[in-house]
This record gives sequence, structure tokens and C-alpha cells, in this order.
Amino acid sequence: VSPVLARRMAALRSSAIRDLLAVTARPEVIGLAGGLPDPNLVPLQRIRDATMRALVTADALQYTETAGLLALREVIADRESAYRPCRVDVADVAVTHGSQQGLSLLAQVLVDPGATVVVEEPAYPGALQVLRAAQARIVTVPLDEDGMRVDLLADLLESGERPVFVHTVSTFHNPRGVTLSVSRRRELVALAERFGFYVVEDDPYGELYYTGRPPEPVAALSDRVIRLSSVSKILAPALRVGWMVAPREIRAAVELVKQGADLCDSRLTQQVVAELLADGPWLDEHVAGLRADYGRRADTLGAAVRREFGDTATLSPIGGGMFGWLEFHDGTDTDALLTAALGRGVAFVPGSAFAVGGGAGAGASARLCFTTNTADRLDEAVARLAAAHDC
Amino acid sequence: VSPVLARRMAALRSSAIRDLLAVTARPEVIGLAGGLPDPNLVPLQRIRDATMRALVTADALQYTETAGLLALREVIADRESAYRPCRVDVADVAVTHGSQQGLSLLAQVLVDPGATVVVEEPAYPGALQVLRAAQARIVTVPLDEDGMRVDLLADLLESGERPVFVHTVSTFHNPRGVTLSVSRRRELVALAERFGFYVVEDDPYGELYYTGRPPEPVAALSDRVIRLSSVSKILAPALRVGWMVAPREIRAAVELVKQGADLCDSRLTQQVVAELLADGPWLDEHVAGLRADYGRRADTLGAAVRREFGDTATLSPIGGGMFGWLEFHDGTDTDALLTAALGRGVAFVPGSAFAVGGGAGAGASARLCFTTNTADRLDEAVARLAAAHDC
Repeated sequence: VSPVLARRMAALRSSAIRDLLAVTARPEVIGLAGGLPDPNLVPLQRIRDATMRALVTADALQYTETAGLLALREVIADRESAYRPCRVDVADVAVTHGSQQGLSLLAQVLVDPGATVVVEEPAYPGALQVLRAAQARIVTVPLDEDGMRVDLLADLLESGERPVFVHTVSTFHNPRGVTLSVSRRRELVALAERFGFYVVEDDPYGELYYTGRPPEPVAALSDRVIRLSSVSKILAPALRVGWMVAPREIRAAVELVKQGADLCDSRLTQQVVAELLADGPWLDEHVAGLRADYGRRADTLGAAVRREFGDTATLSPIGGGMFGWLEFHDGTDTDALLTAALGRGVAFVPGSAFAVGGGAGAGASARLCFTTNTADRLDEAVARLAAAHDC
Repeated sequence: VSPVLARRMAALRSSAIRDLLAVTARPEVIGLAGGLPDPNLVPLQRIRDATMRALVTADALQYTETAGLLALREVIADRESAYRPCRVDVADVAVTHGSQQGLSLLAQVLVDPGATVVVEEPAYPGALQVLRAAQARIVTVPLDEDGMRVDLLADLLESGERPVFVHTVSTFHNPRGVTLSVSRRRELVALAERFGFYVVEDDPYGELYYTGRPPEPVAALSDRVIRLSSVSKILAPALRVGWMVAPREIRAAVELVKQGADLCDSRLTQQVVAELLADGPWLDEHVAGLRADYGRRADTLGAAVRREFGDTATLSPIGGGMFGWLEFHDGTDTDALLTAALGRGVAFVPGSAFAVGGGAGAGASARLCFTTNTADRLDEAVARLAAAHDC
């Protein structure tokens, strides 16, 4: 192994979650680990129909524009304009290979080695991977029930920190489940404008709300916000369609970097997504169905945790998204619990996977995904988890 | 615009080809510019059928492994084993989002800023974009009728150059059309083993041969070869399925980087490609058909250039691939010719797009893609080009 390669391998850490998914693919294991939608709630028939329509000619199988098919960018621009004071132009939209690619391209465009980037803690591991690969200096701000502690971010800025951008999973945070409050959204963009950083609003979950509509995106409040989203959670992951809405000069740089990264995405899946996103009545009904189904599962998970764990552990309130955040109060080490849990046939992600440094309390917490499995399976999963905990 | 962003934009150059494609999308322009397969020769019905089979359940729409679907890696490993002395293991195969992503991930894994990388000149522009983004020090070796001048590479190495890797489009070069001879393949891997660099064999065109089968891949000769290929030219670009066969430690690092780059590719298109590549008899007949059709078009282009240009310009012999390389002998500047040609309704890529430094003769040459258009259109395109040249 060459020295460069050895150094790279040491700097990069494999995603604990993706490794866990490979281990837990066995059908007898109930998976609460991955952030996976339930395949049974994917609009299979509608995607089949749209795919067949796209494949009437072979044009859908040709190379397409690096920035994405115009028809898709138009419908994304329409949707992103709905909540903003000014219309989003198609020229400000870039389609990406999932929103993860959007974040990766942004890091290539904005982050020099050693540059400071702020992330929330517990952190979205996909952001950490990108930022470590870019050799960013990662600084964390903790979350509470109202999302990022923007007051602590302000302290960092006052003390001289000058991040290139602040990354936030603003709505139904992964892994923490919380949503940035309206007042903190305003404070965050005020800080961005005052200190000259970008806010990267990573928002794949915002449409999956179960107890009331969340605040409007941070991107509604300032043009210093770079917004990332995706159809992976509302339509299907394998379409691999995400998007970025960003200031024009950043969008242009992202397109240049994407030319080198992979030339372009699939015109076929872009045509399918353009059709589905443009059919507002169908989409509204489909997403309303997801909210109803996933909302019931969130309730099931909460009730099962209360029933099985009582005062031993607490599940945070779930307002939307795909994850519940479980915290043990009895000194349980969730890394050790995972081993026992896998033996009992249930998988989850221990809090340590989301810790940047020595995140306080990470070792006593766990992320539970409630969207992949039915209510019956969720009940069984929590019973298995309790058995693993008690043995 | 921030200083970092301004610096990035200056370092990156947009692909002249992709910009040209945007300009020349008008239907009245005959496109010889893009490296586009003819949509009419894409196996549309077979891809439709395979897509419908894949979409019998929603499993094909879920997230998949970062390294690629096992069934697809198995069939790729089989195909890549056919010409090698030792079997390729599935663990040595990584599926990528087109072979362009393979190259981009490799650069992230192997190239530190300032590291030396050797490319052929005229160069594949997609390689230049990746290497500029990685801040590599790019050193060129010229091509002749037998591919890379490996003797000149040897001189560079003897004089102290120590590249991390040497990139070669070994077979039916883009843009130059030439193929690395058997003896040079042997000399290249001998140098790789002696001086400790990797050979990156970028080979999307090898199966499209029209005048006889090309030599076996360079990867057959040494395990210091990292091989990239793709189905974009033989099945369809929008499937976005490429692959890398690489030494185990590089494959592992590439997988880590890909987790951050885009998590995974589309399971749907991977299932489709796995089915099509596994059906050997069908695939052989399909590719034989492409060879026959594209081979006739290569002949048509050659005859049209002789008829229209006589001794004024020469088209290199075309043994395979998608491109003819046209060289003017009358002092024609092909950048200026492009403007006149677009006025007459024909597009091509001027040689300057493939020049790294001041590539000798680049200004008098042009890349003509003959796969996108029928023979009649190719005749018309060359007539328009001659009219533009003569006016």
C-alpha cells in the first residue's frame, strides 16, 4: 500500500451504517438501522407506468445535460419557488445524483484543506465523510429539542471562528429527529449574513411530517442558503434524483465539478421524476398516504418503547422524518447493546456512529428507523431490543 | 464571489465538448461533436423488457450496496476474467456511476495536490477535468499510430518523473482513434512494475471493433493495471453503469470515497444491466450488430472525407470506437472552422479541446464522431464541412 493510499484510508472512515447494512441483510434480522423507506410504500405502479412512457423512444437512454434535464429543473424550480419570496430560476437548480452528491460537489467547490465547516452534533455521517475527504476542519454545534443551538454557534463566531459553511439537517434531523425552530432559523440566517458564511440546508425529510407542518425552509429567509433535497424519501431511492438550489456562481462551479465527477445523471430516471413531481394532485395524495402510514409507525415505535423500557430509556418525540432517537438512563452502552441486539435479531445504529469528537451522551443513545417496517414488526423489534437489553 | 470559489473556477475549465453540445442541440445541426451512440441502435425493447422484469417488485427501487449489486459484480467479474490469466474476484470489482466516476474516485484516492499524473496527448478531456480538480501536475506523452509513445514515457521516467499513475485510453483512443500495440502494452506494464506506478486503462470502446479484434486489454498483462469500462457505448448511456477492476486496497478506498460521493448507484439500472450482460448469446448478437452498423458509418465517413477534401485533409484509419481524427494540411485553424461549420449546420470538436499545453498540430485537427448519425447524414455533414472550409 502506497503512503498516499495509507494516509487516505486512515483519514476516511467507512460509514458504520453502510457496514451495518451489509451485516444485517439477513431476513431474520429486523432492520431499524438503515434510513430505508418501506418498499411496499414506494409508488411502484406509477413508477412503472412513467418508466414505460419514458421508454417509448430511446431518447431517454441517451446522455443528458450535466445540470439535469430541463423539464425536471423546471418542475423543481416551481416547487422550490412555492415557499420563497422570489421565484427560483431554472438556472439556479442543479440536479444531482442524490442529495449526497450535492453535498460532495459543494465540498469540492467551497472547502480547501483546513477550512472550517460547522456541523450539528450528533452529526449526519454522510456529511462527515464528505468533509473528512475534503480535509475540512470540522467544528460542531450541539442540538437540542429546537434543533441547532444557534446561540452556541453565535458564541463560536464571536470568538473568531470563520466557517465556510454551516451544515444543517434543518427539519426532522438525521439522526436526532428534531426541527430547527422558526426563531432559530431567523437567527441562523442573520449570522450567515453578518459573518459571511453559507448555510447548507440539507432537507430530504421536510415533506414527511406527522404532527403538523414544519416551518418553511431556511432557504425562504436568505439567499445565503444553499438548499439540498431529494426524492429518495418520498418517491424511491433508486431513482437517484436529488437537487441543489444555490447562488448562481456556486451552481456554475458545481456544474463544472460534476462534469468531471460523472458527466451526467440518468436521463431515464430524470424523465420519470419530472413526470411524477409535475403531477401535483397525484403527488399530494401519495405523500399524504406516506404521512399517514409513517406517522402511525412513529406512534407504534413510541408506544412500544414506553411499554418495553418504562423509565429506563426515552424516545424523543417524533414530528416527522424517519428516525426516533432513543436515550438510555441506566448507563447502557449502545455499542455493546448492538452486539446483543444482533444476536436477538434486531439492528439499530448506536449513537457513537454520529459522534464527531467525544459527543456527550453518544454512548447511551441509538437511532431507530421506523419507516422500513410495519407496526407489527416494530413491536417485535422493540421487544427483541428489550430482551437484548435485559440479558 | 469568494476567493476560494474564484480560484476553483479559474482552475476548472468547462468541457468544451459539453458546452458545444448545449449550443448544437438544434435539430438542423448535424452533430459530429458528442461521443453519442445512435439512439436507434440502443436495444430499446430489450431494456424495456428487462426494466419491467426488474420492476415486478419495489426491491429494485431501494438503496443498494455502495460497491454495486452483487449479481452485477458477478457478471462483470466473469467477463473481465475471460481474457486474464487469473480469475477476477467479485471483491475486486466496483460498480461506478459511469466510468467517468471511476476515474474521479481514483483521483480522490490516489492523487495528492501536486502529484504527477501522465496522460496521452491529445488527451481525453474528462481525464483532464478530473486531474485539474485534484490539482495534479499533468505531464503528457504524445500518441502516434500505435498509441502512446511508450518510448517517450520511458525517457520521462529515466529522467526522474515519478507519476502516481499513467492514464491511457488504450483501445480506439478518444479523440485520436488509435490503439496501443501489443508490444507497447508489454513495455508499458514493464515500466509500471519497474517504476512502481499504476496504469489506469480507460476502455469504454474496446468491444466496438470494425476491422479486426484489438489486442487483449492491458489489464491482462499485470496486476498494476486499474481497469475502467462501461456499458454506455454498447448498451445505453442513461443506464449510468461503469465499473472498475482494481487491486483490493484501491477498491476498498474507492468504496469509502464513493460512500461520501453519492452513497450508491441505481439498483434499478444495475438489475437491468446485470440481466443484459448475463445473456451472452443476445449480447454477442447485439454487439455484432453495432460493429456492422458503426463499421459501415466509419467507412462512409472516410470515403466522404476523401471525396470532399482530397489532399487537403486526412482522416486517420478507423479500427473501432466512435471517432475519426481529421488533420488539415493547408493551415486550416479548426477553431475558426467550427464557427463557419456551425453556420452551415454541422458541429465537430476542434483539436484544441484535447490539447493540454500547446499540443503540436492541435489547431489543425478535429474529432469527428461517426456513431450518432446515419450514413446519409454523415455524407451531408462532410459536404457541409467542406463548404464551410471553402468559403
